[in-house]
Amino acid sequence: MTDIDSSSDTQTETGWLSSDQLEIFRANMPLVYVDAVPVRVDGLGNVEEVGMLLRQGADRSISRMVVTGRVLYGERVREALMRHCEKDLGPMALPRVPANPTPFTIAEYFPDPEISGFYDPRHHAVSLAYVVPVDGECEPTQEALDLTWFTPQEAVSDDVVLEMTSGHDRLIRLALAHVGKLP
Amino acid sequence: MTDIDSSSDTQTETGWLSSDQLEIFRANMPLVYVDAVPVRVDGLGNVEEVGMLLRQGADRSISRMVVTGRVLYGERVREALMRHCEKDLGPMALPRVPANPTPFTIAEYFPDPEISGFYDPRHHAVSLAYVVPVDGECEPTQEALDLTWFTPQEAVSDDVVLEMTSGHDRLIRLALAHVGKLP
Amino acid sequence: MTDIDSSSDTQTETGWLSSDQLEIFRANMPLVYVDAVPVRVDGLGNVEEVGMLLRQGADRSISRMVVTGRVLYGERVREALMRHCEKDLGPMALPRVPANPTPFTIAEYFPDPEISGFYDPRHHAVSLAYVVPVDGECEPTQEALDLTWFTPQEAVSDDVVLEMTSGHDRLIRLALAHVGKLP
Amino acid sequence: MTDIDSSSDTQTETGWLSSDQLEIFRANMPLVYVDAVPVRVDGLGNVEEVGMLLRQGADRSISRMVVTGRVLYGERVREALMRHCEKDLGPMALPRVPANPTPFTIAEYFPDPEISGFYDPRHHAVSLAYVVPVDGECEPTQEALDLTWFTPQEAVSDDVVLEMTSGHDRLIRLALAHVGKLP
Repeated sequence: MTDIDSSSDTQTETGWLSSDQLEIFRANMPLVYVDAVPVRVDGLGNVEEVGMLLRQGADRSISRMVVTGRVLYGERVREALMRHCEKDLGPMALPRVPANPTPFTIAEYFPDPEISGFYDPRHHAVSLAYVVPVDGECEPTQEALDLTWFTPQEAVSDDVVLEMTSGHDRLIRLALAHVGKLP
Repeated sequence: MTDIDSSSDTQTETGWLSSDQLEIFRANMPLVYVDAVPVRVDGLGNVEEVGMLLRQGADRSISRMVVTGRVLYGERVREALMRHCEKDLGPMALPRVPANPTPFTIAEYFPDPEISGFYDPRHHAVSLAYVVPVDGECEPTQEALDLTWFTPQEAVSDDVVLEMTSGHDRLIRLALAHVGKLP
Repeated sequence: MTDIDSSSDTQTETGWLSSDQLEIFRANMPLVYVDAVPVRVDGLGNVEEVGMLLRQGADRSISRMVVTGRVLYGERVREALMRHCEKDLGPMALPRVPANPTPFTIAEYFPDPEISGFYDPRHHAVSLAYVVPVDGECEPTQEALDLTWFTPQEAVSDDVVLEMTSGHDRLIRLALAHVGKLP
Repeated sequence: MTDIDSSSDTQTETGWLSSDQLEIFRANMPLVYVDAVPVRVDGLGNVEEVGMLLRQGADRSISRMVVTGRVLYGERVREALMRHCEKDLGPMALPRVPANPTPFTIAEYFPDPEISGFYDPRHHAVSLAYVVPVDGECEPTQEALDLTWFTPQEAVSDDVVLEMTSGHDRLIRLALAHVGKLP
């Protein structure tokens, strides 16, 4: 899980929040996050491929990961999901946020990797995780080095799992199970 | 719930099934059905309108109803859902069957309207119900007399509910609740 | 939505959080909440009754509401759900938190009641909402004045809806739809 | 997937259905089934163990499998789920059918194992799959030779997967993903 919060000030309802203030929040309150697993679907809605970003994660390692980021003050969950998809996949990705607002799972990230298996050294975050079909052309933006599409079989293979940290490999398996495509 | 099964023979794995044979099935075994609630969504996935067909229902009354029909032998649920959407909404409707195969509810139709509130005088059917966003132009086909789009507020209004039978008004409310838009 | 946060200091990972600090969080970041709709089920899992607390809400009115409260730093969502159920329903309630961690809906509470229909004058909260069967004896504790059980029909009646604020009446309808019991 | 249908006559609304008639249905129409994955949960609802029966499957092999069986004419899905759990786990199992009637997945069994990965040589069945916590003492009944409890880690291990057929190993993984416990 990563975003640019730690390296810059953040806009809030009451103005800009300093990095220092954000650090205090992080040490005291769970944050609200969204995780999005981008997928390609066929004409019947079958998931054919899962997209993963290659980027520097919250733990500073370069690893494969899903789209992820914070929900801002005053922002709807749906808006945050769209904003992070566009930020990470580019403006032509055409993400289709599901009509159902219920996440397929809740990923609880903790600084202690033992608690839930979802790990973020920076904070405790409760992340609402969604599968988001994308129809358009994806171009990784910002810090992402690459975006690669994997078949469900590849996405759960040892090779790919080894390139993932923070529990994102497990999140991919839960997403594939949700859409009935876990091998 | 209606389809053309009662007025014609039906193709199966082992050839054509006669109307008589279908009648025997109907009197002895629950059938597998799908119900689809067509919706229009905005760019963030918010449901803005619900589509309802005006047609002769299983109870022979003219009423507003959702897309509905039987799953055939050898057919995937997803395929049945797409087939019935195209049959009822026309070839340009561009229905988007969700990636998640889980229905938002199970509507159990019985010849006795007291059992579950979902009623079909012809048979016992277990229907998997889905919300299906449609992007294209819908034209009611076959026996449907009309297709009308309603806002969530209109869809649960007394006027519209009065035009529905067989429990379809309740199915609409369950669908709107599922997408977080029940007024 | 209410809890005792505004009237006392709060324990966190890094010690006690002052009321002042909590106020700053509330003005700048969405908080993570859980909502629990207590229900009585029969032997087949059918929801027969919905429990509602009578208490002073976040908007200071006395109204009927569901169990609700904040997720603390370091706390699992499941633990928060159990803690708030025990706090509001008493130690003998025997709440059964579902095995599936996915909420039935996400209730987004804002200081502006127009944004989502879920309203909290104090803050923006993203609340994970669950239906929680309770087997034991419930006794309202803390600030709750009363706990009353309603049939699904009663729970959505005009009389009961009029006694609810903050969107809790809608949350009840979404919960009843989720369990297939919305009238 | 197995039940006693193939070896005996079956009661229906209109009387007893002969084995011959059932064979005709099976060759022409998808049947409605339920699958139940029995689990043990802790006080917070966390799944700690998964129960699997050892019995002769639909493909005649002795294998580990979940509880499964047909929905009868006139029977609610909930009733079928309870009936099959009691039939396979014994009268003291105290299964707790979830309040939410939505299955966690739809398992589509076909005589051709390539279509969906769920296989039944006898027929096409659409099975509604549920996770069912059991509180009491389980004793395998009828044809089951044994009932064994596995941790999530064990349940997805190669050793156990090798003892499963018909796609039941995948159903277990989907069930564990649904409750957030897939390793």
